[in-house]
Amino acid sequence: MQSGIPEIETAARNASRAFPAYSQTKPEERAVFLETIGQEIMLLGDALISRAMLETGLPEARLIGERARTVGQLQLFADILREGSWVEAVIDPALPDRKPLPRADIRKMLVPIGPVLVFGASNFPFAFSTAGGDTASALAAGNPVIVKAHEGHLGTNELVGKVIQYAAKKTGMPAGVFSYLVIDKIADTQELIRNEFIKAIGFTGSYKAGMSIFHTATTARRTPIPVYAEMSSVNPVVILPEILQQKAETLAAQIAASVTLGSGQFCTNPGLLFLMASDDAARFEKELTGLISNASPTLMLNKTVCHNYYNSKKALATQDGISILAEAADLSAELKSAPALLKTTAADFIQNAALQSEVFGPSSLIVWCKDRNELLSALESLHGQLTGTVMGTADDLAAYNEIITSLSSKAGRILFNGVPTGVEVCHAMVHGGPFPATSDARSTSVGGDAIKRFVRPLCLQDCPSDLLPPALKNENPLNIMRKINGRITNEKINP
Amino acid sequence: MQSGIPEIETAARNASRAFPAYSQTKPEERAVFLETIGQEIMLLGDALISRAMLETGLPEARLIGERARTVGQLQLFADILREGSWVEAVIDPALPDRKPLPRADIRKMLVPIGPVLVFGASNFPFAFSTAGGDTASALAAGNPVIVKAHEGHLGTNELVGKVIQYAAKKTGMPAGVFSYLVIDKIADTQELIRNEFIKAIGFTGSYKAGMSIFHTATTARRTPIPVYAEMSSVNPVVILPEILQQKAETLAAQIAASVTLGSGQFCTNPGLLFLMASDDAARFEKELTGLISNASPTLMLNKTVCHNYYNSKKALATQDGISILAEAADLSAELKSAPALLKTTAADFIQNAALQSEVFGPSSLIVWCKDRNELLSALESLHGQLTGTVMGTADDLAAYNEIITSLSSKAGRILFNGVPTGVEVCHAMVHGGPFPATSDARSTSVGGDAIKRFVRPLCLQDCPSDLLPPALKNENPLNIMRKINGRITNEKINP
Repeated sequence: MQSGIPEIETAARNASRAFPAYSQTKPEERAVFLETIGQEIMLLGDALISRAMLETGLPEARLIGERARTVGQLQLFADILREGSWVEAVIDPALPDRKPLPRADIRKMLVPIGPVLVFGASNFPFAFSTAGGDTASALAAGNPVIVKAHEGHLGTNELVGKVIQYAAKKTGMPAGVFSYLVIDKIADTQELIRNEFIKAIGFTGSYKAGMSIFHTATTARRTPIPVYAEMSSVNPVVILPEILQQKAETLAAQIAASVTLGSGQFCTNPGLLFLMASDDAARFEKELTGLISNASPTLMLNKTVCHNYYNSKKALATQDGISILAEAADLSAELKSAPALLKTTAADFIQNAALQSEVFGPSSLIVWCKDRNELLSALESLHGQLTGTVMGTADDLAAYNEIITSLSSKAGRILFNGVPTGVEVCHAMVHGGPFPATSDARSTSVGGDAIKRFVRPLCLQDCPSDLLPPALKNENPLNIMRKINGRITNEKINP
Repeated sequence: MQSGIPEIETAARNASRAFPAYSQTKPEERAVFLETIGQEIMLLGDALISRAMLETGLPEARLIGERARTVGQLQLFADILREGSWVEAVIDPALPDRKPLPRADIRKMLVPIGPVLVFGASNFPFAFSTAGGDTASALAAGNPVIVKAHEGHLGTNELVGKVIQYAAKKTGMPAGVFSYLVIDKIADTQELIRNEFIKAIGFTGSYKAGMSIFHTATTARRTPIPVYAEMSSVNPVVILPEILQQKAETLAAQIAASVTLGSGQFCTNPGLLFLMASDDAARFEKELTGLISNASPTLMLNKTVCHNYYNSKKALATQDGISILAEAADLSAELKSAPALLKTTAADFIQNAALQSEVFGPSSLIVWCKDRNELLSALESLHGQLTGTVMGTADDLAAYNEIITSLSSKAGRILFNGVPTGVEVCHAMVHGGPFPATSDARSTSVGGDAIKRFVRPLCLQDCPSDLLPPALKNENPLNIMRKINGRITNEKINP
C-alpha cells in the first residue's frame, strides 16, 4: 500500500506512456470518462461517506454536500469539453497577395502538457482531493494524473482512486492515465516532484509545504515546471460605517457563522476584520465577541490541523498589541477547536507582518482603525489574498471607492456584502490570488478556467488541411467559437 | 546616463505610483498612447536607422523592415484594445431561486498586474527592445514598463526611450509609466529583479542570462514573480524522403538562405537538419555544403555575439562524432561570421546532449539517421524548442505522421514546408515553447496573446452594477465577446 521510489517511477513512466494516446482522445470521450467517474463515486454510496466521516471528523451532511460538489465539478468539465471553445482556437488565414511579403496560414490552439501531479488536501477529502478540481481539470485538458494521497484520509483516497481507475478502464482510456500514491517519506515526495515525466503540479495546503514544492519544482529539476500551489490567505473583510450603523447585529451573526463554519477549516475563512472606530463598530465588536464566546467547539480534521490551530493562534495572540476578546478553553485533547476572536490596532497591524499569519481554524482578528486613512494604510500593507470582502451600503461603497481599488490589487476575488466561505464552482470563479495566497496569481483552482493551468498554446503554420485538428479546420466541425483575424466567431472559413 | 541603485529604485517606485492611474485608463486611451509611440518612432526618421546601423551592424533594409514591424506591433495591440474582448470577461449571473442554495452573481475579467521589467535584446534593436513586443504588450495590458537597455545599442535605446516618454506625456499618461535604465553592473541588475515593485519580467536572450533572471525572480525575492524568458532553441527541421527526391536542390537553397539570413542571428535559426540516409539525402547534403561554403561572411551584432558564435561553434565541432562539411575562415577579427555546416549521426546525437547546444549564428548541424526508427528516437531526445519544421509531400506527411506528433510535443510552433525564420506578428502566432526554449511554455512573446502574460483574473461577486467595470456591465457597453453561463456571446444581460 505504501509507495516507494519504484512505485513512484512506475506511476510517472506509465503516465508518460499514456499521454500520447490520452491527449488524442476526443473531447466527447473525455467527457464520458469524467461523467463515469462521477457516477461511480455516487455508486460507492454510504460506504464512501462513512469512510470519509471516520477519517476526517467532518459531519455527514457536509460530506454529502461536498460529494455533490465534486460530482458537479466533473460534470462542469464534461460540459466544457462538449461545448469545446475552451481550446481558444485562433486562426489567421494565409494572405498570399499581401505586399511586401505574403502571410502564411497560421493557426493555434491550447494542447495538454503531460502528466500532472496532484496533492490531495486535508480539508476537502472529495472536492480538493483524489477526484477533486485539480484532477478533474487536468484530466479534462487531456493530461494523465498522479495523485499523492493526503495522509489524513487514505481510505477515502483509495475508494475514490479505484473508482477513477475503474472508470478509465470502463471508458477505454489508456492504462496509466490515473494513479495514486501513498508516500510517507518527504524525500520520496521530493523525488516525485523532481521526476522529469511530471509536467505540472496542483497543490492545496500550507504555505510551508506549498513553497517547498514550488522551490523543488523550479530549482531542483532539469526542466522547471508550473506549480499551482494554493497556500495561505487571511481573507480581509472591511465593514463600512453606514452598514454598521444599520445592522451591526446582523453582520456580526453573518461573520460569526462564516468564521466558525466547518471548524474554520476553509482557505477562505475571514481571518481579518477591518473596522473604523465608532459606537457602531463597538456595538458590532461586542455582539461578535458574544457570538464567538458562545460558539460550540467542533471536531477538527486531524491531530496536525488541531495542533497547528492552537499553536498558530497562540503565536498570534502573544504578539505585541494583541488582545483576546473571546476564546474558549483549550479542547485540543478532544481534537476540538476553540473559536477565538482577537483584536489589534491598525498601527500594530501595519508594523508587524506576523499579524497577517494564517490561523487555520475558527479564529479571526479585528483590526481597529482610527479613521479612513489608517484603514487605507492597513489595507495597503496586506499580502496577497484569495478574497477581499467589503460590507457597505450603496452610499458607503460610493464614499469608500478606494477601498475596493485597494482590495482588488491584493486579492483574486472581491465580495460585496457576502462572506468569503462558500466557493461557487462556475465559469467566472477565481479561487486564486497574488502571492502568498497562491504561487501563481494567473490561475484559478476552482471553476471552468482551472483547465487553463494544464495546457500550452501550439501553433501550426501552413499545415495541410487534412492534418489540422478538428478545432482548427476551415469547416469548424466542432462548431466552436474561434478567433479569426482577431474577431471571435463560430463561422466557417471559406478557403 | 548610467543608472545605479538610486535610479533603479526611483524608476521602480515611480512605476508603482503610476500603476493605479495607468491601470484605470480607458482602452482607447492606451490605444492612442501606443499609436503615438509608433508615429513618433517614424518621425525620428533616418536618425534612428543610422544610429541602429552604427550600433548593431545590421543593414539599412533590415532595420527599416524591423522598424515597420515594431510600429505594426504597436498598432496590433492598439487594435486589440479597441476590439476589447481580450479581457476575457466571464459572467455567471445570480440564480436567486436555485435550490438548495441560491447562486451569487459572479463575474471576472483579466486585469493588469503592475510594473513590468523588460530586457532589451541584442538581435532586434527595435522589435524586441525598448518599444518591442514585451513593452507594447505590457503597456497595452495596463502595466507601467521599465526597460533595461541592451548594452549593444544604447543610443538606439535612448532615442526610442525618449520617444515613449514623450508619447506618454503627449497623451496624458501618468508620470513613471515608462522609464529605461542603463545598468552595467550585474549586481545592480539583480537588485532591479529583486525590487518588490516589479511584478513580471520579459526577456529575450541567452540561456545563461535567462536562467539567472528566472532563478533570482523565483527564489531571491520576497514574492516570486512570473518570468517570460525566451532563451535557447535549435529549431529542428526534418526533411522527408519523397520531397528530397523531388527537389533536393530547391530545399538546400531554402535552408541555406534561412541559416545565413541576418548572419544567423535569429532565435528561430534552423540549427538541426534531420535526414534519413538515401541518395537524395546525400544529394541535398552536397548541395547545401556547396551553398554554405560559398555563403558570404557577414557582420555580426557585436564583439560578444561574434566571440560566442566562434566559441560555441568550436565547442560543437570538437564533440565526438562531429564532422565539418563546410566552414569559412575565421573572420572574427572583422566581427564577421563564417557560415558553417556540420554533420553527425543520430546515434551520436542521441547520446550527447551537448550536440543540442545553440550556436547563435549562421551554423547548422545535419543529423544523419539510418532509418525511420533512428529519426524518431533522435526527435524524442530533443529538448524544448521554439519551432519544429517538417518538409514533405502530402504522401510524406501521411506516411510519417508520428514525426509531426513528436515535434508537436517539443515545440511551440510547427511549420510545414517553410523555414522557421520570419516570425509573423499576428493573433495566432506562438513564439514560445517548452523549456529551455522559454522559461514558460504557456506563453508567447510575439503576437496578440503576448498581452496575456501581464494580467491576472479578478473576480467580483455580487458587485453593485454601478461599480462594475464596463467590460462586466449587463449592457455590454464595449460590445465585446463575453462568456455568459459558459457560452461566448456579445449579448447584453437582461437583469
